[in-house]
Amino acid sequence: MSDISPARSNPEPGGTPPREVDWLLADADWVLTCDAAMSAIPSGAVAIEGDTLVGVGSSRDIRSRFRGRNEMCLKGCLVAPGLINTHGHAAMSCFRGLGSDLPLERWLTEVIFPAEASHVTPEFVHYGTLLSCIEMLKGGTTTFCDGYFFEEEAARAAQESGIRAVLGQGILDFPTPDQPDPSRFAERAEAFLRSFPPGESRLQPSLFCHSISACGPETLRRVKSICRESGILFQIHLSETASEVEQVIGRYGTRPVHHLDRLGILDDRTLCAHAVWLDREEIDILAARGAGLSHNEESNMKLASGIAPVPELIGAGVRIGLGTDGCASNNDLDLFSEMDMVAKSHKAFRKDPMACSAAAVLRMATRGGSAVLSHQGMTGGIEEGWKADLIVIDLDQPHLTPLYDPISHLVYAAGAGDVRHVWVDGRLVVSNGTILTLDESRIMKEVLRIAGKIAGAS
Amino acid sequence: MSDISPARSNPEPGGTPPREVDWLLADADWVLTCDAAMSAIPSGAVAIEGDTLVGVGSSRDIRSRFRGRNEMCLKGCLVAPGLINTHGHAAMSCFRGLGSDLPLERWLTEVIFPAEASHVTPEFVHYGTLLSCIEMLKGGTTTFCDGYFFEEEAARAAQESGIRAVLGQGILDFPTPDQPDPSRFAERAEAFLRSFPPGESRLQPSLFCHSISACGPETLRRVKSICRESGILFQIHLSETASEVEQVIGRYGTRPVHHLDRLGILDDRTLCAHAVWLDREEIDILAARGAGLSHNEESNMKLASGIAPVPELIGAGVRIGLGTDGCASNNDLDLFSEMDMVAKSHKAFRKDPMACSAAAVLRMATRGGSAVLSHQGMTGGIEEGWKADLIVIDLDQPHLTPLYDPISHLVYAAGAGDVRHVWVDGRLVVSNGTILTLDESRIMKEVLRIAGKIAGAS
Ligand SMILES: [Zn+2]
Ligand SMILES: [Zn+2]
Repeated sequence: MSDISPARSNPEPGGTPPREVDWLLADADWVLTCDAAMSAIPSGAVAIEGDTLVGVGSSRDIRSRFRGRNEMCLKGCLVAPGLINTHGHAAMSCFRGLGSDLPLERWLTEVIFPAEASHVTPEFVHYGTLLSCIEMLKGGTTTFCDGYFFEEEAARAAQESGIRAVLGQGILDFPTPDQPDPSRFAERAEAFLRSFPPGESRLQPSLFCHSISACGPETLRRVKSICRESGILFQIHLSETASEVEQVIGRYGTRPVHHLDRLGILDDRTLCAHAVWLDREEIDILAARGAGLSHNEESNMKLASGIAPVPELIGAGVRIGLGTDGCASNNDLDLFSEMDMVAKSHKAFRKDPMACSAAAVLRMATRGGSAVLSHQGMTGGIEEGWKADLIVIDLDQPHLTPLYDPISHLVYAAGAGDVRHVWVDGRLVVSNGTILTLDESRIMKEVLRIAGKIAGAS
Repeated sequence: MSDISPARSNPEPGGTPPREVDWLLADADWVLTCDAAMSAIPSGAVAIEGDTLVGVGSSRDIRSRFRGRNEMCLKGCLVAPGLINTHGHAAMSCFRGLGSDLPLERWLTEVIFPAEASHVTPEFVHYGTLLSCIEMLKGGTTTFCDGYFFEEEAARAAQESGIRAVLGQGILDFPTPDQPDPSRFAERAEAFLRSFPPGESRLQPSLFCHSISACGPETLRRVKSICRESGILFQIHLSETASEVEQVIGRYGTRPVHHLDRLGILDDRTLCAHAVWLDREEIDILAARGAGLSHNEESNMKLASGIAPVPELIGAGVRIGLGTDGCASNNDLDLFSEMDMVAKSHKAFRKDPMACSAAAVLRMATRGGSAVLSHQGMTGGIEEGWKADLIVIDLDQPHLTPLYDPISHLVYAAGAGDVRHVWVDGRLVVSNGTILTLDESRIMKEVLRIAGKIAGAS
């Protein structure tokens, strides 16, 4: 269904000769641009030079303007922007499916926290994150936003994999695997920022305060101030469960969004994950401050945390992307199943079959995600001058036949297994379903070795 | 990850020599039996002779008792019963994704009914059903229960594909593509039953009254009586939307389950699809009559029809299986995504993370489905003496690594794309992801030709 073929010479009837570029991907049945109008180009093509999309349009037009040092015929395929996973804990793939079907608080205190206390090491984070990068890239995710411990190791893994990432060092007022003395949290944060891989534009550092419950006002304020000084993203879990909201009200006399707002935390470089339990006033504050949200529907559903007011948030103009959360509570990092779930669950919950249309959901998984990571104008769409983060879906399969509406297909019928090729930053990282940047079987063996110790201990 | 190897000779230290059988599948990491206790056998094996499972147990035990004319080493794989799709309209794959994001009544009256009136022919049903059989078999579904028009053609398609099926001829009090004169519905039903492929135990006929709204009391009674005489399954759409229930109350002065019960329709050979809007008394009647339900969560969510009271139904002892519904409203026939959706949505809706555990959902997709089709003791489990309807999942993949709980993995992390091999009735029909019984590319071409006419007309 897709072939890499040597460059063909184009006829040049008098006009400008076509520009030579690194990649010419042509004859795709559809190019979903995810531009502001969510346009879909039939028989479309893109041209890539270096890390940048230099041409997007009909195959006829793009072929007349460009010649590729590498060309690929994408007949029977659909091209879309790489999907953007705005919230997760990549290393937790080592805990995939541990303690299914428990409520959040029991699952955390009885299963996950003890497992983290005994098993989370730099090696755990390195191999867990590598495994997650493979799963995400093969499944069409080209950017992820992370928060965990030993986040230097997550950054190293992301760098090796070729994925684009925002890497958040986790901060809590309790002893953590990488900081036994919580009073020294600022030193930990600064050490992480100092060590951050320099000169790699694909990777950005971030700091991740676990939650209002786990981080007192001084910690929140101080960490946000370090983020402001460094111009980086501040992340936090916000209002995931009703009991968490009750706890915050009990302790601080106000709801979580007000609490963060009073501390001066909310701005367009703050990303709040989950955000399930919000009242009208909180939605308006989030919109007014330009704060970003990560909607984590599969995790919220599996843990029965509640249903976020997504249509209201979109209606109020709150910026919102999708995220899988850690795959311990999901149990995968598949943004295709996430899109399907988001599109269907909000229809069901509000008994409105027009809620969260396929196009609205795809927008959240692409442009929306890009915006909450401050990557707007760079990723989340196929537009000239933007980064070449692309995925190719093989449409020539029984479960994707016939096709009346490519956006509906992508959300409701396509799956992670339908991704054939993936480019990040102009680099082909998955080809014919195979990851090119990492040694998949070796990494799986290392994770199985780590999992053997976890299973033996529990 | 799996090899077909020539039979090895086993040492026979004095004991009975191993019995020679058609297939010995050994060394699977897990065999999920889906027996009454939902047991999982580590390092498991199965032996198949003809259409029957003759041995199920540990690899050590099964290797000592059997020798296969064909042997397959399933290291890195999981073996499970084939999944059972208890409700759908297979031919509607020709309409896949037509009119997404509309409410049920508008979607039916403005999109689907007009498309059916113009396009549904024997050829449409034949190719649409063939396409669906390929999608289902490749995705691990080994039995489906169908209801549509020109159902002889659906039967022919199912026969060619090698799948197990219950094929329901659709009956309405309105002109249909295969019966312009609705007064002659009983002739249509009887003609279908007479023509039914004889001598093929894998296929069984059924009659499908569309709904209470579309079939008056006389039609329902008469069709159920034909079903009783022939010992076959009676199918109907029941209480899919709140407005349908209001309509029935308005017309007949009683709720739908009472209406069917008064007409004597409800028994253990009646299968009701959707069953979203039920009160407590109706649940008790369904349980007392032994009627079967097909739960169609993805379709119910996408059309915002409502949420069926599944935990209450299971608690009351109502027999219940899973179904995808037609893939026009889903938009696929994937029982893996259906299982994931069912397990998550009921947790979310009732704010109970223990609702619909992975094991409960897998039970519905296997034994539960078998029971509502009156196939119990024959399909839906890996037990000695039962039919050899099996699927093999490739666990050796990043998104399925590591594995702590095989049932949680199957429901929450595995997908249709992870199915490697499928046996139905002891016959290998999908091998290494390729369908062996049908010409996939020819069938896709025929469906694309039909879809071209549909797209041109709409
Ligand atoms: Zn999280
Ligand atoms: Zn139906």
